[in-house]
Amino acid sequence: MLSFNEILQRIEQEVSLLHFNCSPDSLYAPVKYILSLGGKRIRPALTLIACNIYKDTIDDAIAPALSLEVFHNFTLLHDDLMDQADKRRNNPTVHKIWNANTAILSGDAMVIASYKIIAGSKPEFLKELIDLFTATALEICGGQQYDMEFESRPDVSEAEYLEMIRLKTAVLLACGLKMGAITGGAPANDAAHLYQYGLNIGLSFQLKDDLLDVYGDPGTFGKNTGGDIICNKKTFLLINALRKATPGQQKKLRQWFAKKEFDPAEKIEAFRRIYNESGVKEMTEAKIQDYYNKALSHLASLNVPEEKLSVLKEVSHILLHRES
Amino acid sequence: MLSFNEILQRIEQEVSLLHFNCSPDSLYAPVKYILSLGGKRIRPALTLIACNIYKDTIDDAIAPALSLEVFHNFTLLHDDLMDQADKRRNNPTVHKIWNANTAILSGDAMVIASYKIIAGSKPEFLKELIDLFTATALEICGGQQYDMEFESRPDVSEAEYLEMIRLKTAVLLACGLKMGAITGGAPANDAAHLYQYGLNIGLSFQLKDDLLDVYGDPGTFGKNTGGDIICNKKTFLLINALRKATPGQQKKLRQWFAKKEFDPAEKIEAFRRIYNESGVKEMTEAKIQDYYNKALSHLASLNVPEEKLSVLKEVSHILLHRES
Repeated sequence: MLSFNEILQRIEQEVSLLHFNCSPDSLYAPVKYILSLGGKRIRPALTLIACNIYKDTIDDAIAPALSLEVFHNFTLLHDDLMDQADKRRNNPTVHKIWNANTAILSGDAMVIASYKIIAGSKPEFLKELIDLFTATALEICGGQQYDMEFESRPDVSEAEYLEMIRLKTAVLLACGLKMGAITGGAPANDAAHLYQYGLNIGLSFQLKDDLLDVYGDPGTFGKNTGGDIICNKKTFLLINALRKATPGQQKKLRQWFAKKEFDPAEKIEAFRRIYNESGVKEMTEAKIQDYYNKALSHLASLNVPEEKLSVLKEVSHILLHRES
Repeated sequence: MLSFNEILQRIEQEVSLLHFNCSPDSLYAPVKYILSLGGKRIRPALTLIACNIYKDTIDDAIAPALSLEVFHNFTLLHDDLMDQADKRRNNPTVHKIWNANTAILSGDAMVIASYKIIAGSKPEFLKELIDLFTATALEICGGQQYDMEFESRPDVSEAEYLEMIRLKTAVLLACGLKMGAITGGAPANDAAHLYQYGLNIGLSFQLKDDLLDVYGDPGTFGKNTGGDIICNKKTFLLINALRKATPGQQKKLRQWFAKKEFDPAEKIEAFRRIYNESGVKEMTEAKIQDYYNKALSHLASLNVPEEKLSVLKEVSHILLHRES
């Protein structure tokens, strides 16, 4: 069985072997750029780890894993354009270096490239992998649509928010794990549990992201912290603050929403204080732990010897305790 | 064998059966909108016609035909956004009715939906169809990239222009024909000739489009005529006018390029006169005929009884003589 580090090394090696040396160069330069920015590679890692539970060789999982990573980076590229974000992984975003049209078109090419890669899977898995990948990709588009719509809606509920992050983030992790299970030859029941593990770990992953935006160390987080606060993004924390905080705290929040000109540090500090005082920080931490426990319970339902799950448990633990 | 009209009716019926009733509605409303605008449906028609040459039932060709039509409409949606076009088929474009972000995201969903559809093809054809579709889709992105780059380049050659329209337009028609051949069970040699037929008919199709932009009847053309002229687009006509016209005519063209404020009708008339006087109109008509003849020569090389080709010849003739 491969260690987590060996898995990550294999992914970096495989990503570097992806040759986007097609013409025109100008179409593929942004593709190579965004893939070179690294990131945690957690999605393709989950695919390879899931495959490795059932098979010693993970070669059959490489194509779906890479396809997932290319697709994930496509979503970052187009989302950053739609959100007008300046930075991604401490580097300028594609539409900032090039322009909006290049970001649109290179992103389009990445979706197609992700299908090109997954189509290289073993024929016996092809149909099942493509169907799962496609269903997931459409869910992710739906998640992004909800995310954009929530910006202009004052009344987003916790349930709606959780459904949005399920679609936008969690299903891709779940899909990655199931694709690993499929290529590893796992029983259908195990593949379903790994999918559910992925959904729950994905939800805890995104809530942790929300938390890090407020409490993370800007040096290690990779994005500026407080970004969600500055743009009034209705995260799990804010939605619950608007429900649980005192009338006085809620009034303060709404006053901040309306301000067009403000000192960002001051606004972030004000929100952080309300999140602390209203118990929203602890509530978020508890929710993260809750999804984490659910995720682990699905691992416990797998029909494999416990030692086969050591890497997946290690990764779960890293995701829960990460500071970036 | 089905008539051209029966083929078109089948396509309209199948397009109307495509249910994009997934949530959120807001993501799929633009998809339904652009597919409802009609268009010639020439690409899916070519797929069904090619299949019908070899098989009486065209059911196996429906999925690739629809996938092609959805993909084609995706390219229109994103291209219109990139070109900031206001109109498509005499109706407002998606980013005008909704906004840029909706156009980006709904377009993304359409690419994925086109794969969802093609993945419903018979398993025995799946891998070959997806590989061809994917290679074609990447070529089309390359064509669009060249098209955008040519806008800011003063020195685009005829060869570069023809390569651009091959990628942007012709390969999709060729792909459609070959997908029909594959699902019809055509011999590989015939599939290759149908692909070449498609490339050449596609090139003549696009040059005809360039010609109609200058000489078409605005009422029937569906776009405003003269659009290429107004924005100095380096079409086959303009590239050749810049080579073949007299120094005086060339000077006039360059003066028009530089003008920021002008009467569109006056500019269109000036270009039209130069195209007429310099023989560029006839040169373009001859080039269209040339590609048309090459296309027909590939039909003549097919290993099928001539009567099987009547519909394809009818369509070729319609495309050559169309006024819109």
